[in-house]
Amino acid sequence: MKKFLGDDFLLQSELAAALYDQVKDLPIVDYHCHLEPAEIAENKRFKNITEIWLYGDHYKWRLMRTNGVDERFITGDATDWEKFEKWAETIDDCIGNPLYHWTHLELQRYFGYYGLLSAKTAKEVWDICNEKIAAQDFCVHNILAQFKVEMIGTTDDPADSLEHHAAIKASGLATKVLPTLRPGHLYNIDSPNFIPYLEKLSKISDVEIDNYSDLMLAMQKRVDFFHEMGCRASDIGMDAVVFEEYSPFEIDVIFNKATSGKQLTQEEIDKYRTSLMVDLGIMYADKGWAVQYHMNALRNNNKIMFEALGADKGFDSISDAALAKSLGLLLDALANEGKLAKTILYSLNPAQDDIITTMAGNFQGGGIKGKIQHGSAWWFNDTKTGMEKQMISLANNGMLARFIGMLTDSRSFLSYPRHEYFRRIMVNLLANWVIAGEFPNNFEKLSQVAKDISYYNARNFFEY
Amino acid sequence: MKKFLGDDFLLQSELAAALYDQVKDLPIVDYHCHLEPAEIAENKRFKNITEIWLYGDHYKWRLMRTNGVDERFITGDATDWEKFEKWAETIDDCIGNPLYHWTHLELQRYFGYYGLLSAKTAKEVWDICNEKIAAQDFCVHNILAQFKVEMIGTTDDPADSLEHHAAIKASGLATKVLPTLRPGHLYNIDSPNFIPYLEKLSKISDVEIDNYSDLMLAMQKRVDFFHEMGCRASDIGMDAVVFEEYSPFEIDVIFNKATSGKQLTQEEIDKYRTSLMVDLGIMYADKGWAVQYHMNALRNNNKIMFEALGADKGFDSISDAALAKSLGLLLDALANEGKLAKTILYSLNPAQDDIITTMAGNFQGGGIKGKIQHGSAWWFNDTKTGMEKQMISLANNGMLARFIGMLTDSRSFLSYPRHEYFRRIMVNLLANWVIAGEFPNNFEKLSQVAKDISYYNARNFFEY
Amino acid sequence: MKKFLGDDFLLQSELAAALYDQVKDLPIVDYHCHLEPAEIAENKRFKNITEIWLYGDHYKWRLMRTNGVDERFITGDATDWEKFEKWAETIDDCIGNPLYHWTHLELQRYFGYYGLLSAKTAKEVWDICNEKIAAQDFCVHNILAQFKVEMIGTTDDPADSLEHHAAIKASGLATKVLPTLRPGHLYNIDSPNFIPYLEKLSKISDVEIDNYSDLMLAMQKRVDFFHEMGCRASDIGMDAVVFEEYSPFEIDVIFNKATSGKQLTQEEIDKYRTSLMVDLGIMYADKGWAVQYHMNALRNNNKIMFEALGADKGFDSISDAALAKSLGLLLDALANEGKLAKTILYSLNPAQDDIITTMAGNFQGGGIKGKIQHGSAWWFNDTKTGMEKQMISLANNGMLARFIGMLTDSRSFLSYPRHEYFRRIMVNLLANWVIAGEFPNNFEKLSQVAKDISYYNARNFFEY
Repeated sequence: MKKFLGDDFLLQSELAAALYDQVKDLPIVDYHCHLEPAEIAENKRFKNITEIWLYGDHYKWRLMRTNGVDERFITGDATDWEKFEKWAETIDDCIGNPLYHWTHLELQRYFGYYGLLSAKTAKEVWDICNEKIAAQDFCVHNILAQFKVEMIGTTDDPADSLEHHAAIKASGLATKVLPTLRPGHLYNIDSPNFIPYLEKLSKISDVEIDNYSDLMLAMQKRVDFFHEMGCRASDIGMDAVVFEEYSPFEIDVIFNKATSGKQLTQEEIDKYRTSLMVDLGIMYADKGWAVQYHMNALRNNNKIMFEALGADKGFDSISDAALAKSLGLLLDALANEGKLAKTILYSLNPAQDDIITTMAGNFQGGGIKGKIQHGSAWWFNDTKTGMEKQMISLANNGMLARFIGMLTDSRSFLSYPRHEYFRRIMVNLLANWVIAGEFPNNFEKLSQVAKDISYYNARNFFEY
Repeated sequence: MKKFLGDDFLLQSELAAALYDQVKDLPIVDYHCHLEPAEIAENKRFKNITEIWLYGDHYKWRLMRTNGVDERFITGDATDWEKFEKWAETIDDCIGNPLYHWTHLELQRYFGYYGLLSAKTAKEVWDICNEKIAAQDFCVHNILAQFKVEMIGTTDDPADSLEHHAAIKASGLATKVLPTLRPGHLYNIDSPNFIPYLEKLSKISDVEIDNYSDLMLAMQKRVDFFHEMGCRASDIGMDAVVFEEYSPFEIDVIFNKATSGKQLTQEEIDKYRTSLMVDLGIMYADKGWAVQYHMNALRNNNKIMFEALGADKGFDSISDAALAKSLGLLLDALANEGKLAKTILYSLNPAQDDIITTMAGNFQGGGIKGKIQHGSAWWFNDTKTGMEKQMISLANNGMLARFIGMLTDSRSFLSYPRHEYFRRIMVNLLANWVIAGEFPNNFEKLSQVAKDISYYNARNFFEY
Repeated sequence: MKKFLGDDFLLQSELAAALYDQVKDLPIVDYHCHLEPAEIAENKRFKNITEIWLYGDHYKWRLMRTNGVDERFITGDATDWEKFEKWAETIDDCIGNPLYHWTHLELQRYFGYYGLLSAKTAKEVWDICNEKIAAQDFCVHNILAQFKVEMIGTTDDPADSLEHHAAIKASGLATKVLPTLRPGHLYNIDSPNFIPYLEKLSKISDVEIDNYSDLMLAMQKRVDFFHEMGCRASDIGMDAVVFEEYSPFEIDVIFNKATSGKQLTQEEIDKYRTSLMVDLGIMYADKGWAVQYHMNALRNNNKIMFEALGADKGFDSISDAALAKSLGLLLDALANEGKLAKTILYSLNPAQDDIITTMAGNFQGGGIKGKIQHGSAWWFNDTKTGMEKQMISLANNGMLARFIGMLTDSRSFLSYPRHEYFRRIMVNLLANWVIAGEFPNNFEKLSQVAKDISYYNARNFFEY
């Protein structure tokens, strides 16, 4: 029986442990996350563990709700201590959940606490964490240094000024904090927010946006600007993947209809979205950026809670919409233009793992190793079994050795141990193949593969 | 090498065995099954093992057909011995099938037979079983006592008089036998059976049903009556999950069209079904009942056999229809009314496990622990791998510790060892996490979780 | 730690090894592949290892493209040595991929080379292989003899003369090389190739094809001819499974519309395809043939590459289209006519494994053991995990012991070790159940099951 969360956590063999030794100190390239650039710029400090853990982490909120905790203790007006106590009670019963691991990994790595969080220990842990947090050295910049975070890819609206990115760069912070362009507001042409958003975009790009061509002009200027600011990737949440053949003329008509405040049909929305993805895709390819497609989330399912709390509050789940055909057509449209950028495909539906892996295989090439990536197990799949499943899919039908590996996708500065979690799972998988006689015991080779997936592949892929 | 079906069956570690000791004698809450209340009321006795095993078990029939057995020996006029012999021949070759385990568990637990069933032993087993069956003490009430069945949730039509439930209650049987309202005949508005069924419902509820509002009035009376009779749950087989926005006016029109014998469009059927699910859902919530949705069965695929034998004869399979979006809208419609009852979601498609688990997470809350449940691996998934997959999905994205656990869904009084089967698999899963260092070795905690999943969660959930 | 690819490769226990001993020398029934009959007839010899491995193997090409290899070294004008060297470099980094295993199995079994292929060893391996290839005894007939290939099912167009099959038969080759009728060109009524193809078919069948009935007449003649030539199976790639109710009159109209060069609607195409599958299915059933449905491939996703290289060049992937309902209707339509042939169902989407297994269960019977088969893990699923998943699905909801087992689906004479690969995985699975106490340790029974799946079931199923 292994000790819980000991040195050999998730490492089932000596070989796995030896491989983990090779990768544990490598820098972190956290190429996709939702950290606030402002908080990095200001080298944010925290008032207590509840602020860090529970102000914004909807993973934790969902578990608390499942445990019957009243919303007052989740997003309501309970005190920070009360909220923490409810979390402590909840996590104690989360056997098998990755948050059980993450929570205790974070307590060990950030706070040196090696006990277990529960109702019984809540006060002790609260005191220990808050004492550490109050100390002068507990700040964002020190965290980034401690975890050797070499690069952070934030998630940024095209209309963002990137002023915080500029400030970070000017500060000489060792970690590169690069913007990632995420044109979600443009994608959502059916939102009441669309017209006001265009005005914002018009203003910051200094382009009068009267038609779709103007929009593309404005976006080209933002892409240029983002590139100057270090951006090397874009991202989009295409919850459902659509591909509808369109003519430029149609898109003009649709755009004008939308900006006149008229309601679009689903077909019109889909045509516009297809056009947007293609036209932006071309711009990204021209810059040599990587493109990320986050697919098949089903968001804001609980309307009452959405109206009360807004988006990203723990009311999202997995969609089972078919995507293979549309995704194939979209990638092919770009390939046909000779403008298929390096691409990372993520589906939230794990039943589509093999669909994603094999789709990627259709568009590899052009002399780039691992040009089209099956992105790391995302969100609800960011679990031990989810990561293993994604990597086995990739190994079966692609080249696992070319995988760019882990990202946190997190809103919290306390999530870096998830890279450790991933690396342990990954090296253990490699080692198990060797132990089973399915790959030769060539430590040099294994070690290189492990290092590449942990660090080098991502570094090379994003060319920052 | 472990002995087949020994004491440590499915228990891969000492810890698993120790945990199993903690739960093996807990009562059974079999909250969803298809037992006949009449047979419980009359304390049914059986003529032989074929009656128990082969008169109604379409799981066995499917295997016999796969093995090339002629239908005469399955549902035809062959003798009981001949049918038994064919089953014995078939099961002998069912390596890896759960029925291989269930069959031998049943032989051990009910008949004290520890050998293997095959063509060679068929006569011996036939004699041993039939001798036991002929003995005075082999009857339904004794079986329920032997397996400590504390509660049975039967499946009952709204138009049922529940006379057998009344008789059972009056008899003082220790097992609580509670009705479960399953309004499948109302759901199937497109069936030729719909109009005659309304007459039946009208009669028993003493409500003239001239329109949809009358129907709801009648159903409210039935819900009230079922509640008085101990009902604490409803159930519906929504083979495909539909959600179509509707107005009450439209539903009236659709209902009148149907009762005039006119054919409905699919859209009309879907609107009606949505309305029915919402309106009944509100009634259920008002009573504090649990709602069960059984989704994505594809039934009666073989028309010739359906016409010859009727429904539930072994010609059903799994549907791969998308359901995430519709299911989200249905649950949200109820949540929006403030009338989302405790809900158990079952999809027959195991590729939707994570969709179900994460959908449940969107609607948790209101101070009820585990209010929305991902139901136990159902029907074709009621296998060792299916149960493990469902529980791992639940652990990954929910709280396994709040799971209400196993039910038999069975038509047979010989199915109670399936609770044993489930408990062994469940404690083994818990133990494996501990052995792998993924959860602390806290026996008290593990034991509590195991007990809760085996018994206490279900008892608390149904509040009988 | 096990030696890579040693004698006990993939055999995790002594029992597995003992079972493998029972099946390793059984003949091979390779009932579905894409070998060229002409190459068998002429007893083809090869110029070098690149011709065998890299002229036509799109599995390898996909990996090379993923590794950033320029197309010149894949399908272009690079020398054979250059291509081989690129492959050697690529495979060295394919940890976890089945091609890593297949490549080294082929080097061991065909060339006696027990080292590892990499950039470093490329020249050595090139020389060793090419020397063997140049030797007089390295020819197709000797390969078939070495691997005890008892039967090969090729894939043949209805308009094929089968002259090579005749020549092979006449040559007295011990291996039976049987044609399989694959009417893909008829299925693709929307292809520009359809009208010219009808002319070809008309000519070879000596039937003037002026309407759909003529077409069926012509096909009946081809089916008769194929049967005479030893054909015992048909095959079709129904990438998406469709079932649209139709009348014979409609089909006539649709056929005439197509042969007049007019464009069909999707509904018309689907009606025609449904009719074609039913009418041909009846012919197959009358002959006692087996029918193979290959479902849910998504082909030719990359248009530029398709235009440059044509079909089957490594630009295909998995579709996630729903198929349960349509497939059920199609099989039922045939069952309703009393003309459901022995059928093998393959879906390329592994998320549909349980759908296929349970669908097969709806149509078993008629006294044939394992009449409806869930086909062996196909193409992208032809991996260790894919095969295990398919067999566990089959065991859970069907009779694994009646499984007709492995086929190569290959274009290469070097693929026979995949039967070894399958047999090792299969016996290991059986053994693991026994070791875990989930099946009795009855060696005779296990051995029989292993032999049946390896050889006897297929031999009996195809009745050649």
